[in-house]
Amino acid sequence: MPSTLELLEEHRLYGGWQQRYRHLSSSLNCSMTFSIFLPGPKDGTPPPVVWCLAGLTCTDENFSVKSGAQRVAAELGLVLVMPDTSPRGEGVANDEGYDLGQGAGFYLNATEAPWSANFKMYDYINSELPALVAGNFSVSDRQAIMGHSMGGHGALTIALRNPGRFSSASAFAPIVNPLEVPWGQKAFRAYLGDDVESWKEYDSCWLMRNSANQLPVLIDQGDSDQFLADQLRPERLEEIAREVDFPLTVRVQPGYDHSYFFISSFVEDHLRFHAKYLLV
Amino acid sequence: MPSTLELLEEHRLYGGWQQRYRHLSSSLNCSMTFSIFLPGPKDGTPPPVVWCLAGLTCTDENFSVKSGAQRVAAELGLVLVMPDTSPRGEGVANDEGYDLGQGAGFYLNATEAPWSANFKMYDYINSELPALVAGNFSVSDRQAIMGHSMGGHGALTIALRNPGRFSSASAFAPIVNPLEVPWGQKAFRAYLGDDVESWKEYDSCWLMRNSANQLPVLIDQGDSDQFLADQLRPERLEEIAREVDFPLTVRVQPGYDHSYFFISSFVEDHLRFHAKYLLV
Repeated sequence: MPSTLELLEEHRLYGGWQQRYRHLSSSLNCSMTFSIFLPGPKDGTPPPVVWCLAGLTCTDENFSVKSGAQRVAAELGLVLVMPDTSPRGEGVANDEGYDLGQGAGFYLNATEAPWSANFKMYDYINSELPALVAGNFSVSDRQAIMGHSMGGHGALTIALRNPGRFSSASAFAPIVNPLEVPWGQKAFRAYLGDDVESWKEYDSCWLMRNSANQLPVLIDQGDSDQFLADQLRPERLEEIAREVDFPLTVRVQPGYDHSYFFISSFVEDHLRFHAKYLLV
Repeated sequence: MPSTLELLEEHRLYGGWQQRYRHLSSSLNCSMTFSIFLPGPKDGTPPPVVWCLAGLTCTDENFSVKSGAQRVAAELGLVLVMPDTSPRGEGVANDEGYDLGQGAGFYLNATEAPWSANFKMYDYINSELPALVAGNFSVSDRQAIMGHSMGGHGALTIALRNPGRFSSASAFAPIVNPLEVPWGQKAFRAYLGDDVESWKEYDSCWLMRNSANQLPVLIDQGDSDQFLADQLRPERLEEIAREVDFPLTVRVQPGYDHSYFFISSFVEDHLRFHAKYLLV
C-alpha cells in the first residue's frame, strides 16, 4: 500500500515551494520527515531531482534552512529532496554518542541488533523515498545526488552502487573511507558487526576501486575542516581515482571549515555541475 | 573604557569571513553577542555597513544562518552587522510571552521597571554598537539599515530618527504602526508606561508623518504572512508616504509568508537597493 504524505509545512521560496512532509516508512518502521523544494513552473517538462543527503546530527531541515541551494535550484529548474539522516522516535534504538543511532544512520542497512529493526537507510534513500517522490510529484527520472560529510559518504556510495541511476554525484567534505576512520569504524561495527567484509559495499574507496561504474563526481573540501585529517581524507579517494581513471574532481578550498557556511559558499557550483549532466 | 571583543566563532564564507563576538554592553548592562560578515578584500577602500535587525524570538544567528545575505554582500563588498534582539541573561528581566522581554527588545529605551535596568536597545543599536564596530573593524562611515518584522520596525524608526545617518533603509514585513497593533501595544505599555505620547517616537507611521527626514525606503511584504492583517499593516505607512511625499516603495509578494524563506527570496534585491546609495 502506498505511503500517505502528510504536508507539515509549506513556504513560498524563490518563486517555487519549500515543503515538508511526514510519512510512515516501511523500510525504517517509523514515521519519517523529509523536505522538498519544487521550483516554479518552467516549460511544462517535469524537472530532474537532486538528492541532498545531510551529515551527522542533522535532520531534513539543515540543508533546507542553511544551504541556500534553493536559489540556484529555482534558477536551473531542479527539484531538491532533503531527507532525514536516520530513523527516529522513542521506539527506535539510540546511542549517547552523536555519531551512532538517531541522526547517524550512515545510509546503510544495519544487520545487527538492536539497529537492524529500523536502521535501513540504504533501502529508504535508494528505493522507498525515490518511489514516494516519483509517485507524488511531477519529476523526471533524471537524477543527481549530493551530500555533506556522512551525507557525502551516502551520496558517493549510493551513486557508485547504482550504475546509470545518477547522471552525476557530488559531496562537501565526505567521509570517503569509513573502513579506515573512527566515525566509520564505530558505526559500521555497531550496525554491521565485526566482519569487515560486509563493510566494504559501504566504502567509497573500496567501491571506486572495485566497480566498473563511472560517473562525473565533484568533491569540495575545506582545508580548515576540523575533521579533515582524522575522518575525511579525500586524498585516498583521489589516489584511487587516478589508479582506475575515474572522473573525479577534488577541489581544496583554502580556509573553509566543516560548517554549512562552507556548503553555502560552493553549493551553486555543485548544482551547476549537476545541471550540466541533468539538463542535456 | 572601550569594550573588549571576544571572538566566539569564525567561518570562511563566500570568500569573506562570518564572525561572532561577545562583549560587555554598557547600554544594556549585560554580556551581548553579535555577528558580522566581512567581505573579502576588494580595492582597499573600507566597505560600507548594512545593519540587519532581527525579529521577535531571534538572536544574531537567524539572519546569519538563514538569510543568505552574505552571498550578495560578498559580491557587492558590504559589511553586514547582525545584532541580538534584546539584552540577555539570568539577571535580565523576562516575560513568559515570546513578544516581551528577552528576544523582544523592540529597539527602544525602556523607562519602566523592571525593564529600564537593561532594555536600552535603541541606545545599543544606535550608538554603542556602531562605535564598537567603527573602532574594531575597517569600515567606511556610509551605512544602510534593514530588518525583519520587529527588526523592520527597528530599522525604520532608527533611520527616520537620524537624518543623514543612513543612505537608505529597508524592511521585510515590518511592524510599521506599533501604537495601533497588539504586539506594539503590549510591549510599549510594559517598556514605556501608559503615556502614549512617549510611544510615538518609536512608531514609523508617526515618525514619517512628523519628521522632515527623507531617505529611500524599500519594504517587501508577503501577502500570505500570518501577521499581515493584525500586526503589520504596511498600507498605513504607504498612505502616509503618499501624503507627505516620502520615497517609500512597498512591494507585495504573492504567496510569501513571514519566514526567513521569504527574506532569503528577496534579500538580494534589498542589498542591491542599498548598494545603489552606499556605493556612489
